[in-house]
Amino acid sequence: MCRCGSPLVARYDLLAAAKTFTRAGLAAREPSLWRYSELLPLRDPANRVSFGEQFTPLVPVRALGKELGLERLFVKDEGLLPTGSFKARGAAVGVSRARELGVDAFAMPTNGNAGGAWAAYGTRAGIDAYVVMPQSAPAINKVECVMTGAHVWLVDGLISDAGKIVAKAVAEYGVYDASTLKEPYRIEGKKTLGFELIEQFEWSVPDVILYPTGGGVGLIGIYKAIRELQAMGLLEERLPRFVAVQAQGCAPIVRAFEARQTESTFWDGAHTVAFGINVPKALGDFLVLEALYESGGTAIAIDDERIVAAQRRIGEREGMFICPEGAATLAAAQELRRRDWIAPHERVLAINTGTGLKYPDVKIPELELLQPDATIRIEMRR
Amino acid sequence: MCRCGSPLVARYDLLAAAKTFTRAGLAAREPSLWRYSELLPLRDPANRVSFGEQFTPLVPVRALGKELGLERLFVKDEGLLPTGSFKARGAAVGVSRARELGVDAFAMPTNGNAGGAWAAYGTRAGIDAYVVMPQSAPAINKVECVMTGAHVWLVDGLISDAGKIVAKAVAEYGVYDASTLKEPYRIEGKKTLGFELIEQFEWSVPDVILYPTGGGVGLIGIYKAIRELQAMGLLEERLPRFVAVQAQGCAPIVRAFEARQTESTFWDGAHTVAFGINVPKALGDFLVLEALYESGGTAIAIDDERIVAAQRRIGEREGMFICPEGAATLAAAQELRRRDWIAPHERVLAINTGTGLKYPDVKIPELELLQPDATIRIEMRR
Repeated sequence: MCRCGSPLVARYDLLAAAKTFTRAGLAAREPSLWRYSELLPLRDPANRVSFGEQFTPLVPVRALGKELGLERLFVKDEGLLPTGSFKARGAAVGVSRARELGVDAFAMPTNGNAGGAWAAYGTRAGIDAYVVMPQSAPAINKVECVMTGAHVWLVDGLISDAGKIVAKAVAEYGVYDASTLKEPYRIEGKKTLGFELIEQFEWSVPDVILYPTGGGVGLIGIYKAIRELQAMGLLEERLPRFVAVQAQGCAPIVRAFEARQTESTFWDGAHTVAFGINVPKALGDFLVLEALYESGGTAIAIDDERIVAAQRRIGEREGMFICPEGAATLAAAQELRRRDWIAPHERVLAINTGTGLKYPDVKIPELELLQPDATIRIEMRR
Repeated sequence: MCRCGSPLVARYDLLAAAKTFTRAGLAAREPSLWRYSELLPLRDPANRVSFGEQFTPLVPVRALGKELGLERLFVKDEGLLPTGSFKARGAAVGVSRARELGVDAFAMPTNGNAGGAWAAYGTRAGIDAYVVMPQSAPAINKVECVMTGAHVWLVDGLISDAGKIVAKAVAEYGVYDASTLKEPYRIEGKKTLGFELIEQFEWSVPDVILYPTGGGVGLIGIYKAIRELQAMGLLEERLPRFVAVQAQGCAPIVRAFEARQTESTFWDGAHTVAFGINVPKALGDFLVLEALYESGGTAIAIDDERIVAAQRRIGEREGMFICPEGAATLAAAQELRRRDWIAPHERVLAINTGTGLKYPDVKIPELELLQPDATIRIEMRR
C-alpha cells in the first residue's frame, strides 16, 4: 500500500504489451486467465499456481430474459472456477505473484469465499495461509479453508475485527498481508474477468454490466481491464454502464452514489442473506464510485426477499443454481428495466460470482415423503 | 432398453466419422464436450442443452504423488463441471438427445448428483424433471434439485425403492425413463471424459486409471471412448489398466472381480461416507467387469477412514477440496503402489468425480474462537 494508506494499482507498459497482446494472438492461446500474461504482474510463468483454470461460460438466459423484458440477457458464471467463486481469479494471480516475491506465509481476514480461494492456492503454492474469519461466516467456507490446509481462527466479531487481528500479526511477524487491496495483485487477477467477457462479446462491450458489490474489486477489475484494452487500441472507447448491486441491509455504495459522493461511509448494522456483499465499508469504494460516474452507471439496493426470489426464478427458468449475490444482479436488472433505465434490446450482463452450492442452507419447501409402495402423479403435456 | 432387460449401447459409423474426427481437427474446436459431435448421438446442434461446459482440468499433483511414491500422478477434476459433478456430462448429452426426440418430461431415481444434473439440464431444455430420491440423500442434492426446478419426492427407502416408484410412473404415464442405463445416451455423454483425457495426455493412454465405481457408467464411458478411438486408428491399441474403486461398506464389483465373475450380486446393508458410490448392484456391472478383465485392471475396496484421510491429505498437500469418492481413488493408488501393483514411474490418473463443496458436512476439528482484541501466533520459516 501507499504510505498514505491508499491501495496501489499496477501499471504496465501498454505499448510494449500491444506488440504481442493482439486479438488474433490471444485467440490462439489456451482459454484460461493465464493467456493475458502481458497484462498480469507475474514475470516468470514457472511461478504460476494453477488448478487448470478455464474460461467461465457466458450463458445466454433467454427464458429468464423474456420474463424480465430483456431481449439480450447474459450471465457470466464464475461459479465454475476452482473453489466455486470468482475469488479464484484474485487468488490465482495474487498467490502466484506472492510466490514470485518469495513469500512463504500470508495472513488475511475473510467473510468466506476469498479465504477459501487463497487457502487453496496458497497450499498449492507451498505457502502457509493464516486466515481469520467471523464466527458467523458460512460453515462451508470454514470447512473449505480447513480442508485445503489453511490455519484458521474464528473471531467473535465482524470482518473488521478479523482485519485488526491480521494487522497485528502483520506488524508483529512481518507476514505478507493478503487483505483486500492491501497488495496490488489480487485486482490484477480479477481483471481477467473483464478481458474474458470482452473476448466473449467478440471485442465489444455490453451495454450494461451488473455487479454484486461488496469490496467491489471485481467491478474495479473489469473497469481497469476495459480501460487498458482501450488504451491499447483494442476496444472502442465506449464504456458499459456499470451497476453496483448491493443488498438493502448493507448499501454504503448506493448511499454514497445517491448523494454523489466520491467515498462511502461505514454502514452500521449490516446484514443480508448475500453474505459475500455484506461489506459495510469497502477500501476501494472510491474506485467503484469512479467507475459508476465515468460510465454513466448507477447503484441499486435489493432487499433480501427479492434476492431469494430471483435465485429461485433463474433456477426454475434456466436450471442454474447461482449464489444470492449473483441473484441480486438479476433482481436489479428487472428493477432497472421496470424504471426504463435499461432498454429492452440492450445487451445486459449479470455477473454470478459463485455457485449456489456454497449456500447449502438455502430454504426450500418441505418435500413429500413417500413409502416404497407409493405412486407419483405426473402431468404430461400431451 | 433391449426387451431382454439389458442396456442398449450406441454404435457409430466410425469410418465416416474418422473423415472429420481427426487429431488436428479436434484441436481447432472449442474445448468442450460438444467438440466430439461425430461420436455423440445428437443429430442437430440446435438441440444442444448447455451451460457452456468447458474441458475439466488434468491437474498434476506432484507433492501428493511424492508422498505416495508415484512420480506421475494426475487428478482429472470433474468438480468444475456445471452442477459440480461429472454427472453433468451424461445429463448434457442425455437431455439434449431427449429434447431431440421430442421428450417433454422425464422421471428418474437418484442418490443425489445425477438428479441435480438432470434437473438442471432438464429445466434449461424446457423439459419437466420428476425426481425421486432416498430420504437419506444428502441435503445439498435435495436443495439443488428443487432450486433448479425439478419435481422432487423423497422415499422412505433406498434408491432401488425410488427406482420402483419411477418404473410405475413410466408404465402409467409413458414418461421418459432417465434412470441409469435405461436410455443409451447418458453413457455417450460420460464417454467424453475419455476423449478429453486422451487429448490431454496428448493422444496416449495413461498406465492406470482409477475410477470411483458406483453405477460405473463413467468407467464404461472411458472404456468405450478408448475403444472407439482405437477402432478409428487414432490411438495405440494398449489399454490403461482400469481400477474400479469401491468403499468397503459397498463393494459388489470388488467381490465379483475377486471371484472372477462376470456379474455382481446385490450388496446387503450398503453404507459409506462416499454416498455417490453407495450402489449395491449396478445395472452395468458386467460392462465394468469386462473393462477390468480386458485391460488387466483390478478392483479394490477402501474403508471410510482411509477415504476421509485421503480427502484431507490432498487438501493439505495440493489445496484441492475433492469429494470422498474422488479421495477413494487416491487411497487406492497408495495401496496399489504399496502392493507394487503400480510402479513408481507409471502415469496414474485418479478421477475426481465431484467438488468437495457437495459435502458441506465433512467433519473438521473445532476452530479456536478469538475475542476481537486477541492476537494470533504465526510460525515464520525464516
